[in-house]
Amino acid sequence: MRIGVLTSGGDCPGLNAVIRSVVHRAVVDHGDEVIGFHDGWKGLLECDYRKLDLEAVGGILARGGTILGSSRVQPAHLVDGVERARGHVADLGLDAIIPIGGEGTLKAANLLSEAGLPIVGVPKTIDNDIASTDVTFGFDTAVTVATEALDRLKTTAESHQRVLVVEVMGRHTGWIALHSGMAAGAHAVVVPERPFDIDELTARVGERFEAGKRFAIVVVAEGAKPREGSMDFKTAGTDIYGHERFTGIANQLSVELERRLGKEARPVILGHVQRGGTPTAYDRVLATRFGWHAVEAAHRGEFGMLTALRGTDITMVPLAQAVESLKTVPADRYAEAECVI
Amino acid sequence: MRIGVLTSGGDCPGLNAVIRSVVHRAVVDHGDEVIGFHDGWKGLLECDYRKLDLEAVGGILARGGTILGSSRVQPAHLVDGVERARGHVADLGLDAIIPIGGEGTLKAANLLSEAGLPIVGVPKTIDNDIASTDVTFGFDTAVTVATEALDRLKTTAESHQRVLVVEVMGRHTGWIALHSGMAAGAHAVVVPERPFDIDELTARVGERFEAGKRFAIVVVAEGAKPREGSMDFKTAGTDIYGHERFTGIANQLSVELERRLGKEARPVILGHVQRGGTPTAYDRVLATRFGWHAVEAAHRGEFGMLTALRGTDITMVPLAQAVESLKTVPADRYAEAECVI
Amino acid sequence: MRIGVLTSGGDCPGLNAVIRSVVHRAVVDHGDEVIGFHDGWKGLLECDYRKLDLEAVGGILARGGTILGSSRVQPAHLVDGVERARGHVADLGLDAIIPIGGEGTLKAANLLSEAGLPIVGVPKTIDNDIASTDVTFGFDTAVTVATEALDRLKTTAESHQRVLVVEVMGRHTGWIALHSGMAAGAHAVVVPERPFDIDELTARVGERFEAGKRFAIVVVAEGAKPREGSMDFKTAGTDIYGHERFTGIANQLSVELERRLGKEARPVILGHVQRGGTPTAYDRVLATRFGWHAVEAAHRGEFGMLTALRGTDITMVPLAQAVESLKTVPADRYAEAECVI
Amino acid sequence: MRIGVLTSGGDCPGLNAVIRSVVHRAVVDHGDEVIGFHDGWKGLLECDYRKLDLEAVGGILARGGTILGSSRVQPAHLVDGVERARGHVADLGLDAIIPIGGEGTLKAANLLSEAGLPIVGVPKTIDNDIASTDVTFGFDTAVTVATEALDRLKTTAESHQRVLVVEVMGRHTGWIALHSGMAAGAHAVVVPERPFDIDELTARVGERFEAGKRFAIVVVAEGAKPREGSMDFKTAGTDIYGHERFTGIANQLSVELERRLGKEARPVILGHVQRGGTPTAYDRVLATRFGWHAVEAAHRGEFGMLTALRGTDITMVPLAQAVESLKTVPADRYAEAECVI
Repeated sequence: MRIGVLTSGGDCPGLNAVIRSVVHRAVVDHGDEVIGFHDGWKGLLECDYRKLDLEAVGGILARGGTILGSSRVQPAHLVDGVERARGHVADLGLDAIIPIGGEGTLKAANLLSEAGLPIVGVPKTIDNDIASTDVTFGFDTAVTVATEALDRLKTTAESHQRVLVVEVMGRHTGWIALHSGMAAGAHAVVVPERPFDIDELTARVGERFEAGKRFAIVVVAEGAKPREGSMDFKTAGTDIYGHERFTGIANQLSVELERRLGKEARPVILGHVQRGGTPTAYDRVLATRFGWHAVEAAHRGEFGMLTALRGTDITMVPLAQAVESLKTVPADRYAEAECVI
Repeated sequence: MRIGVLTSGGDCPGLNAVIRSVVHRAVVDHGDEVIGFHDGWKGLLECDYRKLDLEAVGGILARGGTILGSSRVQPAHLVDGVERARGHVADLGLDAIIPIGGEGTLKAANLLSEAGLPIVGVPKTIDNDIASTDVTFGFDTAVTVATEALDRLKTTAESHQRVLVVEVMGRHTGWIALHSGMAAGAHAVVVPERPFDIDELTARVGERFEAGKRFAIVVVAEGAKPREGSMDFKTAGTDIYGHERFTGIANQLSVELERRLGKEARPVILGHVQRGGTPTAYDRVLATRFGWHAVEAAHRGEFGMLTALRGTDITMVPLAQAVESLKTVPADRYAEAECVI
Repeated sequence: MRIGVLTSGGDCPGLNAVIRSVVHRAVVDHGDEVIGFHDGWKGLLECDYRKLDLEAVGGILARGGTILGSSRVQPAHLVDGVERARGHVADLGLDAIIPIGGEGTLKAANLLSEAGLPIVGVPKTIDNDIASTDVTFGFDTAVTVATEALDRLKTTAESHQRVLVVEVMGRHTGWIALHSGMAAGAHAVVVPERPFDIDELTARVGERFEAGKRFAIVVVAEGAKPREGSMDFKTAGTDIYGHERFTGIANQLSVELERRLGKEARPVILGHVQRGGTPTAYDRVLATRFGWHAVEAAHRGEFGMLTALRGTDITMVPLAQAVESLKTVPADRYAEAECVI
Repeated sequence: MRIGVLTSGGDCPGLNAVIRSVVHRAVVDHGDEVIGFHDGWKGLLECDYRKLDLEAVGGILARGGTILGSSRVQPAHLVDGVERARGHVADLGLDAIIPIGGEGTLKAANLLSEAGLPIVGVPKTIDNDIASTDVTFGFDTAVTVATEALDRLKTTAESHQRVLVVEVMGRHTGWIALHSGMAAGAHAVVVPERPFDIDELTARVGERFEAGKRFAIVVVAEGAKPREGSMDFKTAGTDIYGHERFTGIANQLSVELERRLGKEARPVILGHVQRGGTPTAYDRVLATRFGWHAVEAAHRGEFGMLTALRGTDITMVPLAQAVESLKTVPADRYAEAECVI
């Protein structure tokens, strides 16, 4: 068999572990050939690739990033390129393509699959927002990095009698905020799924100070927003050069909490640290299993499918179903957190 | 409601997170009272306990160990003590008891439950060998600690052309060995579930050297054994003082591999480091959820049950069922690992 | 002897280790009594304190923050309070006061010392800007945290072809930027001591891309500034509510580099994470030694002095000398870094 | 200029950082050529080497081990090879050789230097036992790894009422034991420089239990020994196959303490984990500076010298002086520790 693999979309710890696993399983056990396309779909469209043998994937298991590079391709661009992609697949004699990516990538994968290309997808998202799998690799690393930062911030907030508003990743869903907030014992968690009421949030934080506590940690997902009318909020502002820039919920929320509580409040924006670097052991195991099972699915001819974790098993799920909706934080999970944080 | 909580058996990162969560959920949301028995079942039998309020569990979420202490009580001793325990429960006016522990603890819990005491168990094992739950807290931390050690050992083995035989925890099951071995890219994983053939293992490691590699890492669970007749093996030896001591599979295996391969081989025994210290974010979230749901079960009157993780949900499982059999590494999981490591 | 200890100024990993060491040495070996003032100088001025025995400092060695709390007191306020402080010292029968703090704290300590109070200072600064000691505790932790973040950011920048501009602490000196930049192999380090020329910096980063590299990491100290006339720069701006806020060099620099290079550039501001949390082993040892030697100095009657590290020895240095000037990054250290990064 | 570099002796985090720094400084700033000999002195004697350009050292800064490999060569073997080495140096047109290694390597370096070869040594030892430098790279990483393990072990010992006897590296000196013991707050530290009296040690540990504490941590350097006559002690034993093996001080000490105290005591042997893996930021900076200054010394023609850290400066020290004696833990450093641990 001849297999092409590519990584697409934002960075995610564990991409290299999938690539390595695909190569090990395919080359060692099946005697397959594997090639890797450079920079995601772009590599497929431009037929830019290299051969991946055992040597090529040596030492990458614990390394962050992706040895293949990545890029974001506009869906429209890909639609136009379907025939080109089909041509390259034929020229290269590929029997299977394994794209590793998030929601956008999987939509593109579904599109190519419906156009008849032999696709086995591997889901990737630090945000944990893909509905068809219990969890994907990258999420545990992101939560771990955020939790370590929160652990550190707790002591400094305490010593200096402060509110810290810590912004973690999550444009559409609050999973990283929820898990890192629970893990670190934050005092409030604000997620995109539930627009917050600034009065309620102020009250919650204020109660701590009234009870004699000296500090509070608020974890907020980057995509969180105030309930309409609850608070003045700018989703975008202009930077000092007049460019449109995302203003940041943590910045605005800390200003507002400081004003209302009369306590020093400071924003901390964790940013890209959450999506880079060595994956956790959990993510390496999951990524490795996904790669292994993607090769198996290809050999069984199960195309148009996606690897997924269900409980402790890896199963295959139709791509079409996987991209239907985002997995958001349900009310009961939020309720669990609200009590213990 | 009045709830008693206790921790029993070997140490496990996340015990304090469960205790804290029980107290938060019970006291804050339900207005319950919570007491903690000291040193496991011993505290119940001797009516040795203290009150647990929010203050008592402040700052313990990320701390290893257990603020309540633990001990191992002989089952026979507990059988004799059932009436005493019943008396203390009545005297203290307890409506529920939440024991947090491993296989032995849960068996004892089942025994007390069958004797009519209101028990809601919380499973705990770094070994991941409890069948009724996908995973328990403590396991992720143990795997993480082992993987970090393996990451370090890989570079030193490589520079010095060595075989390192790394012994991880797991008396009856090889889950820690399997996951840490996959996560770190070990070159062989030896588990109790599959007695190893020393010829095969030597051949596997030897192939690496023949292929020009300069080192090999073998991960071995402490309970692993050679296939009968395959290699001379002493399950116990006498130490320098003539005491019976567990000799250690890593010691024996490294001596044997060195002799057969003619390469320097060294044992590394990770030991207790795997079961102490700050739990990972994953384990803190799981432990917190278990505590929360144990309180809920108690309020619903669901006794004789155990909290369990199934997929992403916390469910309740009968105690009797939970202690029936150990969860061992199945053949297909081992096969996955064998290829990619 | 009766000793008072206090922590003042910004947070710094290792404060608790000093407090613990003072108590251990004084109480156990000398049979002294130790009290801790709350919230820095404020506690001394308001005679707000508590007794510190071995129990009180149990388990704090590895904990970030300070169990005594801290605050920033205006020097003028302290000048007015000298007589009040003297009175409290007399009332409490104190033979020595050990303030632990940074530049501002040590200036205040010097002032009180010149007014006749028995002071032994312990220097503290994550910025490493105190001239009279080779290094102080807190710095190693800050550099470690920054380096770990840079390690993570490198892989994500590489996969996505980006410039990352990473802002680390250092208002007046660039030590954290220098050390973390060297440790992580950053591609440019910008420090307050050397106003940067934006043309040169752009050229340096641009060369990497011309040489076929896919990313660059620029580490910039928060106090860094462009050479006058080199680039439009606002030291402060107004936030969305019209409040004056420090605009941030990383924000401005990333906008400018993106514009000039035509490559995506993103700011990452590490912030308070650098000054909170568990101190490194290095900082715990240094903090412990400082505490030990401060007690010894008090017993020898060496007041008006400061503990300092010189090579591997702890020595005592006059407070007056310690606060004369900041220790800045010298040209030769910068030159070393410029080559290897 | 043409420079040869090699790494020799046991593994040590930071070796790659030195190699990288030598190449960067030499190639980029001086336009030199650099070659790396394989497997230490062996590579020089057998003229086994490869060219090291910027590409060759890309991405190795934070990687443990050594890309050049290492080996231990018998001094006698090297004496016989001096003429061969001289011949290879002449053939390769080398103007300088930079060996990076510990005591044995530096003795060999001194020998070659006295034979007229142009040597600039870089000291390396995780044990911190080289007298002519304040500290060398690798030590901070070893102490950090040991401290993290001790942090974890403390909680598990506490929960289970145990004595843990933790063996760290240090055959001739107790620096790692001293620093990690101080950093982690161990309850006793046993070093090779001061043979211990088992009665005193038992009393020290026993006092803790009498005072109501539930556990104790004893850190012991692998080379520590009981005072003569104080306790039965075997420096070597035979393993189960009858081979001579180092029996281990931790094993014997835990047996003895258990017998005397009547408390469960367990040995933990940290082993090779201490000398592998990613170097700390501190070690990366020091290693990088050593490499830089070694190149500078070569260009100034300062041969027969060793890079050394004195305070915050890198200076050059004669090789002959550097190998005269080991740096042992002095009485005052031990006294500092004895109080606060």
